[in-house]
Amino acid sequence: VSKSYSLAELAGIFGVPLAGDGGTRITGVADLKSAMPGCISFLNNSRYKSLLSATRAGAVILAQQDAAACPVPALISDNPYALYAKVATLLHPDEDLQSPAGIHASAVIAESAHIDATAIIGPLAVIDENVRVGARSYIGPGSVLGKRTVVGEDCKLAANVTVYHDCKIGSRVIVHASAVIGSDGFGFAPEGEAWLKIPQLGAVTIGDDVEIGAGVAIDRGTLNDTIIENGVKLDNQIHVAHNVRIGAHTAMAAQSGVAGSTHIGRHCAIGGAVGIVGHLQIADGTRLHAFATVSQSIMESGEYASGTPLEPAAQWRRNWARFKQLDDMAKRIRQLEAKLENLEDDNNA
Amino acid sequence: VSKSYSLAELAGIFGVPLAGDGGTRITGVADLKSAMPGCISFLNNSRYKSLLSATRAGAVILAQQDAAACPVPALISDNPYALYAKVATLLHPDEDLQSPAGIHASAVIAESAHIDATAIIGPLAVIDENVRVGARSYIGPGSVLGKRTVVGEDCKLAANVTVYHDCKIGSRVIVHASAVIGSDGFGFAPEGEAWLKIPQLGAVTIGDDVEIGAGVAIDRGTLNDTIIENGVKLDNQIHVAHNVRIGAHTAMAAQSGVAGSTHIGRHCAIGGAVGIVGHLQIADGTRLHAFATVSQSIMESGEYASGTPLEPAAQWRRNWARFKQLDDMAKRIRQLEAKLENLEDDNNA
Amino acid sequence: VSKSYSLAELAGIFGVPLAGDGGTRITGVADLKSAMPGCISFLNNSRYKSLLSATRAGAVILAQQDAAACPVPALISDNPYALYAKVATLLHPDEDLQSPAGIHASAVIAESAHIDATAIIGPLAVIDENVRVGARSYIGPGSVLGKRTVVGEDCKLAANVTVYHDCKIGSRVIVHASAVIGSDGFGFAPEGEAWLKIPQLGAVTIGDDVEIGAGVAIDRGTLNDTIIENGVKLDNQIHVAHNVRIGAHTAMAAQSGVAGSTHIGRHCAIGGAVGIVGHLQIADGTRLHAFATVSQSIMESGEYASGTPLEPAAQWRRNWARFKQLDDMAKRIRQLEAKLENLEDDNNA
Repeated sequence: VSKSYSLAELAGIFGVPLAGDGGTRITGVADLKSAMPGCISFLNNSRYKSLLSATRAGAVILAQQDAAACPVPALISDNPYALYAKVATLLHPDEDLQSPAGIHASAVIAESAHIDATAIIGPLAVIDENVRVGARSYIGPGSVLGKRTVVGEDCKLAANVTVYHDCKIGSRVIVHASAVIGSDGFGFAPEGEAWLKIPQLGAVTIGDDVEIGAGVAIDRGTLNDTIIENGVKLDNQIHVAHNVRIGAHTAMAAQSGVAGSTHIGRHCAIGGAVGIVGHLQIADGTRLHAFATVSQSIMESGEYASGTPLEPAAQWRRNWARFKQLDDMAKRIRQLEAKLENLEDDNNA
Repeated sequence: VSKSYSLAELAGIFGVPLAGDGGTRITGVADLKSAMPGCISFLNNSRYKSLLSATRAGAVILAQQDAAACPVPALISDNPYALYAKVATLLHPDEDLQSPAGIHASAVIAESAHIDATAIIGPLAVIDENVRVGARSYIGPGSVLGKRTVVGEDCKLAANVTVYHDCKIGSRVIVHASAVIGSDGFGFAPEGEAWLKIPQLGAVTIGDDVEIGAGVAIDRGTLNDTIIENGVKLDNQIHVAHNVRIGAHTAMAAQSGVAGSTHIGRHCAIGGAVGIVGHLQIADGTRLHAFATVSQSIMESGEYASGTPLEPAAQWRRNWARFKQLDDMAKRIRQLEAKLENLEDDNNA
Repeated sequence: VSKSYSLAELAGIFGVPLAGDGGTRITGVADLKSAMPGCISFLNNSRYKSLLSATRAGAVILAQQDAAACPVPALISDNPYALYAKVATLLHPDEDLQSPAGIHASAVIAESAHIDATAIIGPLAVIDENVRVGARSYIGPGSVLGKRTVVGEDCKLAANVTVYHDCKIGSRVIVHASAVIGSDGFGFAPEGEAWLKIPQLGAVTIGDDVEIGAGVAIDRGTLNDTIIENGVKLDNQIHVAHNVRIGAHTAMAAQSGVAGSTHIGRHCAIGGAVGIVGHLQIADGTRLHAFATVSQSIMESGEYASGTPLEPAAQWRRNWARFKQLDDMAKRIRQLEAKLENLEDDNNA
């Protein structure tokens, strides 16, 4: 499913300079190597400039400095990858968001819900009392919106998404299938040998332009809301515990987890399978490598990592066992240094 | 959504001493710092006693030893946090469990299913043949109960929960959205280059007072049942493999995983993202730090951990590479010690 | 739910030799210890031969070399575990796949969808435009198939599965509940402080005989498809990012994750909670221990691992802190060696 534009039209829409034949028709996107005529590609890094000469693309998005090397028409941009994102989005609009407005006959909608007339409610969606769904938002098949939940404009909740009661979702938010927003935080008081449930009375507030991956779970706050700020991008199967705050434009890769009450700053880049324990502060702009485990606050922005290298299992087993002796080894090195110093003193004496 | 009680009523309901004006009206809960009149708060730790003087709470739940320092009416308890849990639950009952009893017209219920007249079956729930749902239990929108599954009394299965056939769920069990109970265990026999599926013929048995987080997956047993004992609390996105047993009142934080046939004891506290391999025994009362990886049985209760510290990436990279030399380093320390001993002997000779 | 066969019938069906009374009736399977008459069990490893003498099983599947030690009738096989898998599957066929063919009245099926007359479409399933579902395939309650998706023959999609548009699923594929196939890959272009979404225009192609666990998420490719080859087995809660390829007959245990564009070879065995970063190659036949973290390509097949041992927390804390000194320790050992050599030279001089 794609639309068709002339290169000149694209240059006009995005306000960028055009090099070459503006009449070139563009109907899709592709990478430089596999692009066919009719496709527009992009070059984001001059290092790969050599790919230009052989490309069969109809046009290329690139920086001014690479334009001379381009054998086909081009759109010029300081940020070719960002312009590519915009062109690709224009050429390949989300098909679900293009569906006719209205509520599918099989959806179950509470009378008190307010669904904008331009919204698209898919088959077998369930929308509970006093929910509000904004203009042009899409609620996919089997998705469930709990009481009083608010969904802004131009959102897309895919299939089988669950949003618990009283959650607030901004505009232009994408939520993928099986994601859960507003489940109870994990809070219990010990009494004797049992655990008593602490009611989780906050909700979840999600800003604008957030994307939430498949199978993500974001727990509601204990007393106040768990907060996901504007522009946050969460990959699949991330866990966000109660009372967490994730700062604007932070991106987290899949399977990461954030324990309760931790506040992550803005513009952080967090790799896959990262774990962050509870009640921490993570500074704005922090970068965490995949698999990092964070057990103390990070007060200074920077790039952090933890973990050990992959090794052939036989070799790993030996080093693995030695880890238990690490403190002992350090002490023995200190002793050796002291003894050696004494010996040297003796020899020099 | 909350109810209103006088402080004297609360003291009566929970059988605890009251200090101050029993007529104080309580309609909600809050922490000491943000509580407004009408809210009850709690002080669980004398260390934070200084917060009492400035609180605007209508009343506070606290220990006898802290009562003198409390400027507002109070409920006295040996375990203020547990009493808080009970009061908060009374003031803020689960709204879903308060819904009118009955089966939503859009739910699909097999004729042979037995649904208690006081149960609440949400829209678009699917209840298969010979299922039993007990008194006052709530089955949320889009949830699916497979053939012959039994759900006890006062349970809450949130939206889009899947329970496969023949599983048994006790009473007062909470299951959050997108959780899966009774999926096939991961069992295959190699034949040539292919894997043959081993039918998973057991089911899952879940005790009373269990809570299961969003996106949790609990596999059915191979021949017998996977077992979750009474009072177990599982946070979001936990994986429980086939034939596992989790002992009573054990709590596991999010994203932990337990491989096949491992038996976890009672009263264990397992941090987030912990991994436990298969066929192990974990002693009662074991505590595992977040991110611990367990590859051998734990026969003695205690506190265990594994892993390496977070470091600035440049520093981490050097230490990471050295890990591969750890066994070599240990041997060289041993050699240095031997040589040094020889030298000292020579010098003393 | 099980069928009944005589041992002679089973020998005939699977073409294997029979020892003892072929009239023995078999109605189920069990392990050697708990088997009752009427059950068939198996012995896959001569090491456990001693269990044979006490078994009450009606019959046992075993290797020729163990037949003499078996007090009950037997089926003889070079690969007893594989034969057990086949016999168990015959005796306990999947009940869902035995359901009467047809489309449940509550399912929502697009007019343009093509559902084979022998397929089984469960209650409240949603099947979008131009979807194709092959012969005898089962689509469970609440499952959603996006536009133009193709499902082959003899598949089973359990409840609440989501397949996005344009995905291709082979034959004899099993997908467990809450799994998501075809969600958007995690691709964004930075522009100023924001992230721009890169449309994910590929889909997911899944081969034959694949099994996909509960809560698994497989993202669609950016321009081409994410590919899961024939015979791959994915346990619960695995994440497969965009543009990944997983080679035939590779098995991955629960909670593992594969980042974008990584290609995993054929016949790999990947433990639980393994993480693999993006843009890597993993050689055919690679074995990765549970919890391994892979940040470089593996060009040579073999067994690999990473990580540190579990320790009592107090001991761990000391070794954990020393890890930060590892590079320093290595340098000091080198210095000690050099100094000691000098001293020895001096002494020998």
